[in-house]
Amino acid sequence: MISIGVLGYGTVGSGVVEVLKTNQESINKKAGQEITIKYVLDLRDFPNDPIQEKIVHDFDVILKDDDVKIVVEVMGGVEPAYTFVKKSLLAGKSVATSNKELVAKHGAELLKIARENNINFLFEASVGGGIPIIRPLNSSLTADEIDEITGILNGTTNYILSKMANEGLEFGEVLKDAQNRGYAERNPEADVEGYDACRKIAILSSLAYGMQVDYEDIYTEGITKITANDIKYAKKIGKSIKLLASSKKIDDQVYAMVAPFLIGDSHPLYSVNNVFNAIFVHGNVLGDAMFYGSGAGKLPTASAVVSDVVDAAKHLNRNIMSFWSSRKLELADISGAKRKFFVRIKKDKETTVNQVLFLFENVQIIEIPELTEEFGFVTPIMTEALYREKADSLKGILNMIRIEE
Amino acid sequence: MISIGVLGYGTVGSGVVEVLKTNQESINKKAGQEITIKYVLDLRDFPNDPIQEKIVHDFDVILKDDDVKIVVEVMGGVEPAYTFVKKSLLAGKSVATSNKELVAKHGAELLKIARENNINFLFEASVGGGIPIIRPLNSSLTADEIDEITGILNGTTNYILSKMANEGLEFGEVLKDAQNRGYAERNPEADVEGYDACRKIAILSSLAYGMQVDYEDIYTEGITKITANDIKYAKKIGKSIKLLASSKKIDDQVYAMVAPFLIGDSHPLYSVNNVFNAIFVHGNVLGDAMFYGSGAGKLPTASAVVSDVVDAAKHLNRNIMSFWSSRKLELADISGAKRKFFVRIKKDKETTVNQVLFLFENVQIIEIPELTEEFGFVTPIMTEALYREKADSLKGILNMIRIEE
Repeated sequence: MISIGVLGYGTVGSGVVEVLKTNQESINKKAGQEITIKYVLDLRDFPNDPIQEKIVHDFDVILKDDDVKIVVEVMGGVEPAYTFVKKSLLAGKSVATSNKELVAKHGAELLKIARENNINFLFEASVGGGIPIIRPLNSSLTADEIDEITGILNGTTNYILSKMANEGLEFGEVLKDAQNRGYAERNPEADVEGYDACRKIAILSSLAYGMQVDYEDIYTEGITKITANDIKYAKKIGKSIKLLASSKKIDDQVYAMVAPFLIGDSHPLYSVNNVFNAIFVHGNVLGDAMFYGSGAGKLPTASAVVSDVVDAAKHLNRNIMSFWSSRKLELADISGAKRKFFVRIKKDKETTVNQVLFLFENVQIIEIPELTEEFGFVTPIMTEALYREKADSLKGILNMIRIEE
Repeated sequence: MISIGVLGYGTVGSGVVEVLKTNQESINKKAGQEITIKYVLDLRDFPNDPIQEKIVHDFDVILKDDDVKIVVEVMGGVEPAYTFVKKSLLAGKSVATSNKELVAKHGAELLKIARENNINFLFEASVGGGIPIIRPLNSSLTADEIDEITGILNGTTNYILSKMANEGLEFGEVLKDAQNRGYAERNPEADVEGYDACRKIAILSSLAYGMQVDYEDIYTEGITKITANDIKYAKKIGKSIKLLASSKKIDDQVYAMVAPFLIGDSHPLYSVNNVFNAIFVHGNVLGDAMFYGSGAGKLPTASAVVSDVVDAAKHLNRNIMSFWSSRKLELADISGAKRKFFVRIKKDKETTVNQVLFLFENVQIIEIPELTEEFGFVTPIMTEALYREKADSLKGILNMIRIEE
């Protein structure tokens, strides 16, 4: 029998309790032994919930109990999660966490402590909710050099963009609806400004390239500037607008960014809609692969946490996570990244189609009959730097959205 | 250093040699030691290929060399692969194979031998080519009870159906084109009749449910009867036609089948086109997940084989594959499976829209203006048995395609 302690009885924590109960028999079989929750740490009491008998308010009770071999951290936020997880690992307890802030910030250090103590620090649930991606990167795609990871890593923004596209609505209206349905937080900044996706792509990039990618270094743009008019142009050219979190290795330089992109219908991420997430991976011998599923939600996230518990139970004294050095990976400046750009521009006597044609050459002009006071165009492939230089000389730019080909 | 022996220097075998060479450094790092090919077994000689110095014609050379810890079987077919693999495992060598016939037929037995000898029998490449699916089923989705696996598991038929849909061509024409491009074999029966997909869904089902699913028990229909006219109806109702290999657990009964299905655009498999494969999995707590990628091809398949070699190297004396009992899973008779059916029927005085409406109630009638001598309809949800009973009383049925909702 293996005893575990769960830190936090919020959405994911109560999901972990539920999953362990619902699939008790098959989980024990796969783990090779019985898994029992001994403690649940929470500041609150839950007098009408059977969990109450396991509730403790003091982390030290869990830390000092040698019965507890695995700690599940599902509190979120960097502190006190970091302190609790580090102490647990130093005490020889494996940890499974769903906490992307913690992993993005301290992943390399915590993995190192786990390795030194011959135990495991596992974080399948920190990216893509229930989608298996951390373990496949760690133990399936081992024959490949990964040269691209591009994901739709935030369900809230994907829901908002899907609904804007389906119903022709503006960002603000859909955000309100999403908040009412519980798909977006009252303070939606972390989602809609791309910060959540940024932490997740930092984790995936660190794993794929084996070095520390600091999320603060990743250029991040949210979806707040996307309008119903942008989506009219997207439809006209057969593309959809997605918030992509991407990191690509080109000539030994890694370019990482989070931003809204236009993608075409031949891209596997094109049809990932609503709250679903998906992660596209390109390997030098594998080619294209994609992992799709529920990127959030109580039970899918708990499913991923519990799969880590099973793995930790199967490997109690054997470290299984691979290399993620604390050496910092210096990202390339995105001003050198090359792509096409879609631009919407206000018509006036200074800004005409002819001027755009003269400035960019070879542009594809896009006009929407009902939008009489503006037009759109797609540039040829060029660097961000060159685009910015040319765009600086244009007046009346209403929006620019990058194109992923 | 770990020496390996490769059985077969065909497409996949030469791919394995290429992948190990191309990504030598990172593969050795992930495996924790140097992996070297010591022998390649083939009946042929390759005088102008550097591989020649490793070529042996006698399997016993590999079997008797204690240096060889891992055997890669990429010959295909049941014999002599089965004999070689069994002998290798009994001699304490782990095996990585891409051979679906072997795994479908003898997987349970070979896994048992590996377990008894504390080594590994791994077969990531046997289903879905480069797509990680075996390892995720074995070690990622461990918190779930899997209740559905539905896959597009054959790239040849998916290419043919995609091309028929895109270009309005007939099966025969596209098959010829696929043969010319090397996407279909000269004898295409195993692909187009669904036999290949059938073996693969047998493997996935055995793993998901932990019991032996015999592929001979799986109802299997190919794509040879699909016509350009069927695709016109599919487009009219916003669906695509895919060869699905599916197994579903409903009330503790497992229904498995391989057949062409109509699927709608909200299904994640809808937009899996051309030679790509994808596997949709539903877990009772995870919800929906999908794994997508190159289902065949030299390098993607070799990538999966080599990932197994890395795993075998990391776990030289530790069995890591889970439960697949040799106890036979008795599949439910598909006559009890419920779904909607799409039917095309020839108009004549005995078979009218009214007769169909009377017989099935609530049908959705579909007419294609240019197809004046026929009409189509979609039945309500009913069992296969009831559908067949009603269909028997209708004259002039041109085709029936099941609908996946």
